[in-house]
Amino acid sequence: MPEFAKRIDYMAGSADIIRGLFNAMGDPETISFGGGAPATEALPVEAVQQIASEVLSRAQRGQEALQYGPVQGVRQLREIVAERLLTPKGVPAQADDVLIVNGGLETMNLLCQVFIDPGDVILCESPTFVHCVEIFEMFQARCIGCETDEQGIVPEDVEAKILQYKPKMVYVIPTFQNPTGKTLPADRRRRLAELGSRYDVLILEDDPYRDLRYSGEELLPIKAYDKTGHTVLANSFSKIFSPGSRLGYVFAEHRIIEKLMDVKTATNSHTSMIPQILCAEFFARGLFDEHLRRLCAVHRERRDAMMAALERYMPAGTKWVYPDGGLFTWVELPGGIDTTQLLHEAAACKVAYVAGAGFFVGNTGEGKNCMRISFGNVTPEKIDVGIRRLGDLIRTKL
Amino acid sequence: MPEFAKRIDYMAGSADIIRGLFNAMGDPETISFGGGAPATEALPVEAVQQIASEVLSRAQRGQEALQYGPVQGVRQLREIVAERLLTPKGVPAQADDVLIVNGGLETMNLLCQVFIDPGDVILCESPTFVHCVEIFEMFQARCIGCETDEQGIVPEDVEAKILQYKPKMVYVIPTFQNPTGKTLPADRRRRLAELGSRYDVLILEDDPYRDLRYSGEELLPIKAYDKTGHTVLANSFSKIFSPGSRLGYVFAEHRIIEKLMDVKTATNSHTSMIPQILCAEFFARGLFDEHLRRLCAVHRERRDAMMAALERYMPAGTKWVYPDGGLFTWVELPGGIDTTQLLHEAAACKVAYVAGAGFFVGNTGEGKNCMRISFGNVTPEKIDVGIRRLGDLIRTKL
Repeated sequence: MPEFAKRIDYMAGSADIIRGLFNAMGDPETISFGGGAPATEALPVEAVQQIASEVLSRAQRGQEALQYGPVQGVRQLREIVAERLLTPKGVPAQADDVLIVNGGLETMNLLCQVFIDPGDVILCESPTFVHCVEIFEMFQARCIGCETDEQGIVPEDVEAKILQYKPKMVYVIPTFQNPTGKTLPADRRRRLAELGSRYDVLILEDDPYRDLRYSGEELLPIKAYDKTGHTVLANSFSKIFSPGSRLGYVFAEHRIIEKLMDVKTATNSHTSMIPQILCAEFFARGLFDEHLRRLCAVHRERRDAMMAALERYMPAGTKWVYPDGGLFTWVELPGGIDTTQLLHEAAACKVAYVAGAGFFVGNTGEGKNCMRISFGNVTPEKIDVGIRRLGDLIRTKL
Repeated sequence: MPEFAKRIDYMAGSADIIRGLFNAMGDPETISFGGGAPATEALPVEAVQQIASEVLSRAQRGQEALQYGPVQGVRQLREIVAERLLTPKGVPAQADDVLIVNGGLETMNLLCQVFIDPGDVILCESPTFVHCVEIFEMFQARCIGCETDEQGIVPEDVEAKILQYKPKMVYVIPTFQNPTGKTLPADRRRRLAELGSRYDVLILEDDPYRDLRYSGEELLPIKAYDKTGHTVLANSFSKIFSPGSRLGYVFAEHRIIEKLMDVKTATNSHTSMIPQILCAEFFARGLFDEHLRRLCAVHRERRDAMMAALERYMPAGTKWVYPDGGLFTWVELPGGIDTTQLLHEAAACKVAYVAGAGFFVGNTGEGKNCMRISFGNVTPEKIDVGIRRLGDLIRTKL
C-alpha cells in the first residue's frame, strides 16, 4: 500500500480523541453527557415531513431539488441567512456574500484550504472545540492555545501571542462556548475584531449556539465590530433546524467567499439540495420563530435540571460553569481526580462524558480534572439519574 | 488580508476553467451541450416526494433523518451499495467496507487528503475530467497525462510513466469516459489492476456512468481484477438517482476506508441524512430497476439523436465517438478550428459546449480542435436544433 500523506500522522492524536468520543456513545443503557446534539424530541420532524410532501410535489421545485444546484447554495436560503439571521443581529449582509456549506464544520475545512499552508499558526481558546483542532491539524497548522478566564478568551494574551507567533487566524467560539459554556462579553468581542484588523489576522468566529439563549442579554457577534473584513462568521443550522441535514453558512468579504467557492467546488461541488430547500421553506413559512421558542424552552429546562443536579450530587469543591445558553457546561473536579482515567469506571456505571484534557491543544496537561458535560440531548429525568451516578462515582475517589 | 495558501495559486488555472464552464450555462435561450447533468425530465421526483412524505412521518425515521448520523453513512444505504450495486457486478463487498460520501467527487478529495503530499504524481487519462484535475491540483499534486487511443488509456504508456514518475495514484474513468465517452476493454482493465499491484500504486477507478448503458456488453469494473487492494472504486448516485442529492460511495480495503473516515470527519462530519434515507428507501422499495430502464430509454434516445444530428450537420472530416452509454461524445473538428476561440461565436449562435483543450493537463496544446458534447440534459428536438447551429457555424470557418 502506498504511504499515507504526512498530514495523516500530524492529525493522528486528534483523530483518536474524536473516534473515542463517538464510540462511547454506542451503549443504549448509558446516559451520555458526551456528544453535542440538541434534543432529539425537539427536532422539527412533522414540519419537515409536511414541507417535503408539499414542496417536492411541485414539479419545478421537485426537479430543482434533485438536479445539480449552484456552488454557492440555494438563493432563497442565502437570502434568509442575510435578511433573517444576520442583518437583524447587527451584521448587515447580502445573499451574495453568503456561502451555504455542508454543516458548520465545513467552513473550517474550506477556510483552511484557502488560507493555511503547513506550519501556519492558528490561535485558539484553551480549551477549544477538539473537532476543529482536528481539521486544523489535517492542514498541518500549528495550533496554539490562548489563555481564558471566567469570561472566555483573554484579548491581552491573544495580542501577545499574535506578536509572538504571527498567526494566520484566531479561532473563537464566542457564545456558549464549546466545551465550557462561557460567553465572551461585548468589550472582548470588539477587541478581537480590532486585533484582526490591526495585525492583519483572520478572526474566525464560530457561533452555532448563539440562538439557543435561555438567560442573559443577547450580544453582537464579533463580526458586527469588524471594519476591515478580517472577521469571518461561520454558523450552522445544526442546532436551530437539524444537525443531520448538514447545513451551515459562512459570511465574509466577497473576495474570501469567491475563493471559498473555488475550494468548495473541489471538495464536493455543492451542498445537497433537498435539505437546503426544506430548510429555506421552513423559514419562508414562518415556522422558525415558534420552533426556536420551543427549542429554547426544552433546552432551558435541561440546563436548569443540570445545574440543580450538579448542586445536589457533586461533592464539595466541584466547580462548574452556569451557561446562559447552548448545550454544555464545564465541570472541574476537586482532589486531583483524572477524568480520562475515570472514563472506564464511568462507563461501567453507565454514564458518559467527554474528558477535559482532549480540549487543550498540545498536551499541556491542563484540564485533566475537568469534563465537558452536555445536557442537550438528555431528558431532565435522565440528567438527574446520570449526574447522581457520576457524583456517587466521584465521591468514591475522594 | 492575510495571504492565500500556496495551493490557491496552484489550482488557479483549473478553477478558471471550471468557473467558465458553469457561467456558459446561464442563458435559458442557449442550447447547452456543456455540463454533465442527466435528463431533468427523468429524475424520480414523484417517487422521492412519495417516499419523503411517508418515511419522514414515522417518528423514529424522521428523527433519524434530522439528528446527527454516522460518519460512515446510513447502514441501510451501505448494505444496498454492497448487495445491489457491487456484489452482482463482480465485486463482492461488505457494508463495512463502503463509505457514503457527499457526491462522487468527494471521494477524490478524501483520497487526496489521505494519500497526497504536495509534489506527489497522479497519472490520468489524456484527456480527463477537468473537475478532478482541479481537486488534484488543490492538493498540489503533479498531474501527468497518459496516452489514450480509441479504446481509452493505453496500459503500456501507464507502465512506462509509472516507472518514470513513481506516481502515488492512477486516476481512470473506465466506462463511457468523461470527456470522451470511450469505454476501456476488459483486458486493459485487468492490466491496470495488475499494474497497481505490481508497482504499489493506487488505481482510482471513477465509474459514475457505468449503469447508463444503451448498447454493447457490460464489463467488470477494474476493482473486480484487483487482488491486492490497490484499486479504490469511487461511484456516485448522481446519474442513477439524483445529482442534487450529492450522494456517492467509495469501496476499498478496510484500512483505507478507516483513514477516509478520519478525513471525512474533519471535512464535514458526515453526509446529509435526508438524502441518504430517501435514496435507501428508493432502492428498498424496489423502484430502482424500473427507474434505470426508463433512464436508459430516455438517454438512449438522446444518444441516438445526437449521433444522427452529428451525421447530418457536421462538415466532412469531423470525427466523433459513438458512446455505448453515459452522457458524452467527443467531437474532433477538421481544418484546425480552435474550439476555445469558437466559444464566443457559439454563444452568439445560442449554443454551448465545453472546449477540448481544458481536458488535457499541463497545457499541452492537445485537444484544441475538440469539444465535449453532452446529450444528457437536452431533448432530442433541441439536440437537432443545437447541432445544426453548431454545424452551420463550423462550416463558416472552413
